[in-house]
Amino acid sequence: MRDFDQQYEQLCQHVRQTQRLASAAEVLAWDEHTYMPPQAGPYRAEQLQLLAGLVHQRRTDPDWGARLEDLAAWAEEHRPDAPETVNLLRLRRDWRRQKRLPQSLVEELAHTTSRAQQVWAESRPKNDWNAFAPWLEKVLELKRQQAEALDYQQHIYDALLEDYEPGATTASVQAVLQPLGEALRKLVQRIQHAPLKTDPGLLRRHWPRSEQEKLGRWAAEQLGFSFRRGRLDVTAHPFCTRLGPHDVRITTRYDEQFFPSAFFSILHEAGHGLYEQGLPAEQYGLPLGDSVSLGVHESQSRLWENHVGRSLEFWQWCFPKAREHFPQALADVELEQFHRAVNHVEPSLIRVESDEVTYNLHILIRFELEQELLTGALSVADLPQAWNARYEHYLGVQVPDVAQGVMQDVHWSAGLVGYFPTYSLGNLYAAQLMQAAEQDIGPLGPQWSRGQFTPLLQWMREHVHQHGRRYDPAELIRRATGREPEAQPLLEYLTARFSAIYGL
Amino acid sequence: MRDFDQQYEQLCQHVRQTQRLASAAEVLAWDEHTYMPPQAGPYRAEQLQLLAGLVHQRRTDPDWGARLEDLAAWAEEHRPDAPETVNLLRLRRDWRRQKRLPQSLVEELAHTTSRAQQVWAESRPKNDWNAFAPWLEKVLELKRQQAEALDYQQHIYDALLEDYEPGATTASVQAVLQPLGEALRKLVQRIQHAPLKTDPGLLRRHWPRSEQEKLGRWAAEQLGFSFRRGRLDVTAHPFCTRLGPHDVRITTRYDEQFFPSAFFSILHEAGHGLYEQGLPAEQYGLPLGDSVSLGVHESQSRLWENHVGRSLEFWQWCFPKAREHFPQALADVELEQFHRAVNHVEPSLIRVESDEVTYNLHILIRFELEQELLTGALSVADLPQAWNARYEHYLGVQVPDVAQGVMQDVHWSAGLVGYFPTYSLGNLYAAQLMQAAEQDIGPLGPQWSRGQFTPLLQWMREHVHQHGRRYDPAELIRRATGREPEAQPLLEYLTARFSAIYGL
Repeated sequence: MRDFDQQYEQLCQHVRQTQRLASAAEVLAWDEHTYMPPQAGPYRAEQLQLLAGLVHQRRTDPDWGARLEDLAAWAEEHRPDAPETVNLLRLRRDWRRQKRLPQSLVEELAHTTSRAQQVWAESRPKNDWNAFAPWLEKVLELKRQQAEALDYQQHIYDALLEDYEPGATTASVQAVLQPLGEALRKLVQRIQHAPLKTDPGLLRRHWPRSEQEKLGRWAAEQLGFSFRRGRLDVTAHPFCTRLGPHDVRITTRYDEQFFPSAFFSILHEAGHGLYEQGLPAEQYGLPLGDSVSLGVHESQSRLWENHVGRSLEFWQWCFPKAREHFPQALADVELEQFHRAVNHVEPSLIRVESDEVTYNLHILIRFELEQELLTGALSVADLPQAWNARYEHYLGVQVPDVAQGVMQDVHWSAGLVGYFPTYSLGNLYAAQLMQAAEQDIGPLGPQWSRGQFTPLLQWMREHVHQHGRRYDPAELIRRATGREPEAQPLLEYLTARFSAIYGL
Repeated sequence: MRDFDQQYEQLCQHVRQTQRLASAAEVLAWDEHTYMPPQAGPYRAEQLQLLAGLVHQRRTDPDWGARLEDLAAWAEEHRPDAPETVNLLRLRRDWRRQKRLPQSLVEELAHTTSRAQQVWAESRPKNDWNAFAPWLEKVLELKRQQAEALDYQQHIYDALLEDYEPGATTASVQAVLQPLGEALRKLVQRIQHAPLKTDPGLLRRHWPRSEQEKLGRWAAEQLGFSFRRGRLDVTAHPFCTRLGPHDVRITTRYDEQFFPSAFFSILHEAGHGLYEQGLPAEQYGLPLGDSVSLGVHESQSRLWENHVGRSLEFWQWCFPKAREHFPQALADVELEQFHRAVNHVEPSLIRVESDEVTYNLHILIRFELEQELLTGALSVADLPQAWNARYEHYLGVQVPDVAQGVMQDVHWSAGLVGYFPTYSLGNLYAAQLMQAAEQDIGPLGPQWSRGQFTPLLQWMREHVHQHGRRYDPAELIRRATGREPEAQPLLEYLTARFSAIYGL
């Protein structure tokens, strides 16, 4: 094929143009969560519906698809190792998947999830389950239609999971999460009867918001997050989104009575942001410029939030700075005390504020429930009760209301069903990547205690970020760590860290 | 025509869909000015170029245009007085105009003006004319192409003016602005030799930004601006934009050393916002839901900023509140002193901070220069010198640098050539509308002194806002005031207000 380069460039131009529309929609969605006036919601949903429809139309354009099929087949045979071929094969996989979805369904999903998120944001503070439930019904019905259209081999949930974690299945995730859950419940019990205690009470003091913002921004910047190519704003539910090759936005929420809320969510979202900022900008919009999976994404956020951000060495470096910002709250607090407090383990209600040990139990609950919701084994009407029962069973806590229970997360309202288990996969990957990085570089703690985070970031840039979607998640982990993805590194890490803290 | 309603609805659906794209672009433009990270600019320009192209494509779609022509012709004959006919005739006028513009020109204008604004925003603080000049050249060249494509009878400038003030021509504007300028220069001279003086020095104290923001928001809300359907943010150059039927955003900039900057620009932009919030929401995207002209738009902003916001009665009500926010700066200041200070007249450098008497001289300078730039009589290279000479001639001031001179306004970088004279038309209309409103309602000052602004707002809603683009600007003013648009009310108003202040 003599004009391969030209044909490839034309195909890519179509993709880049589509990405300009998709990223325009991302700007609108970001604005919806950050700054949009309350009454502007319904119209925003109309705008997003239109853009989603246009994007889908372009992604499933039959002429373009036919040219893609031809070119991908040729490249696969004649240039199997070229980066262009990676892009073509990934684009072909996406195209074959996308074209199964009817235009009307894509538009309806965009519109309904935009409205459902608005209703969620309004009704959650009021504990108004009845206002939200009909919207959750609608979203679930559309997700069922989506899953059926996408098709699956074993479980309807597989169809949705594939969007977030290519190659993972309900069964494969179940096989990892169930035993992990059992091991973690045992670790929680050991901690609850441990000889040493931690006192999180000192975190419940007055932490002025503006100082939290300054410290959080500074810390994110020190880890390597660029504010020339990014922002930090406030939303009900923290997130990270990329609006262009040089535009990565993270958000947080501030609780003036509880230090960890904002600080660790900033580190978490900055971790996502570092991944996005580390993707090859010149490939933006193409598979090689895109993140590989939500699990790998989450490995980056959890890594900076927990492995780094809750380590003793990080606080050896950061604590003096924190004291400058919070002279009152930290006046009588010592470094070690503080470090133990931010590692306090206790079964609790809110996933995003839970400790590292119980976190995956929160995920397990959602993973089970959303499978049942999707198959219809569980009705939306029965969901709050099922949620509460599951929290009692796995975590031994009583859920007092829906705001602290079933309505705490934005995900389902946003149509993100099948998303939760990638959080646990991310925890697995993070621990495994950290082990590998330390094997390569040597112990990282001493660097962190001097505020040096570049070696770790460079390692991630090299082994994870730069590859975009070149490999599927499992292969990426295998190449980066030399081993299959597994739970052992996570259990070793958690056991080591919390044995030290609780004197197990 | 039996299926008129159905055909009309289909045409409108096309227009509404186009508007969803156009308003999505507005969201991106708003974000570009408010929150976008510095390095995200070039990609944002690509997104805006694409959206502008899609919008233009839809607005000039030949099938749609043919159906519009048919339906408008039928409606004009059979339902001349129906509101649907107003929409159709206005849409037809727009369509006939839009289709003269080549797609490529529209896209290039969107891209170039997005980049030119970014360059302007970066180079203005650095006084870097050389960085900006090539971009101004590019914009002007594209505006010339646009004007030629749109066609005109007498002056190339007419083609651009028509976009902002339908029905106005270079000659008609000249005929009003020249004598107005002469009269104002005389009034300025009388004020400079007046028996009484005003002291603006007291405005140059320390005004904490957060307090300015609170007072400004509160005042805008008291005038009637709804923050449930709007926002206030910070930009280099204040503006107002509407992103949806219930989403009107205004911006300001804060100067902690000078009170009027932010406060009066908030009142000004809130005036624009009140107009936008007063347009019929159900007609959003259609001519009946759109503002009629920039001149009429500016009449609303200048009315609330100046007629209301700089009146003694307004400050009788607002001054105690201002004192709560600025106890230090206003500790030794009396109401009358303060009111005289915010009405200080003095020829100066910056248009947006100039007083009501000299303001239109700033406009006259720009009106003259941009005509010459467009025809090529003046080159971009010679522009700074010409600017400075004109400021010397009309205002008797020396321009020290380009930031305070030719680079002070965003307009030209944004492609807004032909826009400036609408500011003076707005001042004319504002005075004329105020006279008519007071004839209808009675003296308004006493109401303002009690913080009652609803009667004036209601009058504007009834006589201006609710009509959308039903009438051309001149006819709207005629219907609202019973007279042709004229300069006399403005001169009467300025003479009365400043005679009182300066004891003329």
